[in-house]
Amino acid sequence: MIRKAFKMYLNPRCAKTYEERHQKLWPEMKEVIRSHGGHNYSIFLDEDTNVLYGYVEVESEEKWQEIAKTPINKKWWDYMAPLMRVNADNSPVQDDLRNVFYLS
Amino acid sequence: MIRKAFKMYLNPRCAKTYEERHQKLWPEMKEVIRSHGGHNYSIFLDEDTNVLYGYVEVESEEKWQEIAKTPINKKWWDYMAPLMRVNADNSPVQDDLRNVFYLS
Repeated sequence: MIRKAFKMYLNPRCAKTYEERHQKLWPEMKEVIRSHGGHNYSIFLDEDTNVLYGYVEVESEEKWQEIAKTPINKKWWDYMAPLMRVNADNSPVQDDLRNVFYLS
Repeated sequence: MIRKAFKMYLNPRCAKTYEERHQKLWPEMKEVIRSHGGHNYSIFLDEDTNVLYGYVEVESEEKWQEIAKTPINKKWWDYMAPLMRVNADNSPVQDDLRNVFYLS
């Protein structure tokens, strides 16, 4: 299992809506995450900076990246785009973090 | 299991040393983490900002906090203090992040 961590950037005053939408994450999105090998997925908010930190364990990087090509994920990006810093295709701007320590 | 995430602050030009020391983490420190209910512990470095992100699953918050009172952990703090932003007792300055999403 690969442990991934990455940053995303929430717009000001969007924390409540972001959290509410994730609490009601579409069942089809949950299914896509699982069928693409994503496990133990958490997102944390840094309330000082509005930076979001994702942590997810994935079976393979390639399989995980395939999520981006699914219609349901594109629909989710469009839905979330007003709340976040996004790229031209509405995907969230995402910066990977480097693992420097692990203890099982 | 409680999923905790927190920020710590690395000093400039200390990434290599920080990582090397964690790769050689003292067996006594590993033992203390495990005996205080810590599991699946990762630390990630944000190379843009020198911020460290800890992610750890703990059995109880109280048990986890007890680590701070152990002599070996104090020794570890003293050893790591030159590399990090620390409090008066050499504990690393640590800011908790708020969980906003989880999918098993």
